[in-house]
Amino acid sequence: MRGDAEFALDPHLAGDAHAIGDLELSRVLLMDDARFPWLVLVPRRAGLRELIDLDAATRQALMSEIDRCARVLHTLEHPDKLNIAALGNVVAQLHVHVIARRAHDIAWPRPVWGFGEREPYATGPLSVRLSTLRQALEIPGA
Amino acid sequence: MRGDAEFALDPHLAGDAHAIGDLELSRVLLMDDARFPWLVLVPRRAGLRELIDLDAATRQALMSEIDRCARVLHTLEHPDKLNIAALGNVVAQLHVHVIARRAHDIAWPRPVWGFGEREPYATGPLSVRLSTLRQALEIPGA
Repeated sequence: MRGDAEFALDPHLAGDAHAIGDLELSRVLLMDDARFPWLVLVPRRAGLRELIDLDAATRQALMSEIDRCARVLHTLEHPDKLNIAALGNVVAQLHVHVIARRAHDIAWPRPVWGFGEREPYATGPLSVRLSTLRQALEIPGA
Repeated sequence: MRGDAEFALDPHLAGDAHAIGDLELSRVLLMDDARFPWLVLVPRRAGLRELIDLDAATRQALMSEIDRCARVLHTLEHPDKLNIAALGNVVAQLHVHVIARRAHDIAWPRPVWGFGEREPYATGPLSVRLSTLRQALEIPGA
């Protein structure tokens, strides 16, 4: 269940998000958008595009990691709804969004993708958020 | 893993989609929108809202049924990308979208939710599509 030496994070994802750290299968990112508490899981295997590319064991492992990230966001953010999605229309590398939505957030009830412009975190709040998420996900600091 | 006698399909989903039939856990619907090949899975348990409401066994069962539906759409439609998502900002009952996207579809690369107006199927094509999907998913006809 270890990562793949050939794995490289898509440059578009790397540019839009900050690495929180690695779970057993997935790299976990924080989308650099202060409007929404928004994690992205990227299984560390080269060449994946679709959930149906995964064998059953890897699929189940990913589902467990999605569940873990969703529970952490739920505990930390008390959202009105979690949005969980594997889309990939823009970035082909398989990645799964886990987003805490609030009934008063700027995009509600619409999806967040393509909605307005990203609002990058300020340095201080970003550092606090990454640290809080690493602790909650039990990921060692980078 | 049987359904729940208290389960009732959300009226909004019932109004926007046609029942294909029931898998072990989920009711499978065809969204009545001829613009996109679009399935919706609804676990037949009362009161579910979030994926994190599921116990591990039910979560894994749902993931297997998502995989089954995604493979069927992939085989039948040869999409450029599958979109798989549990959102629920509008309909609270837990449901999972499995959508075959094409790089030339009307919404590409944007998500389909909230994009323009649904285009209901004509009766003939609807009947053919439901029949094809029941056969491919190995669900007995209603």
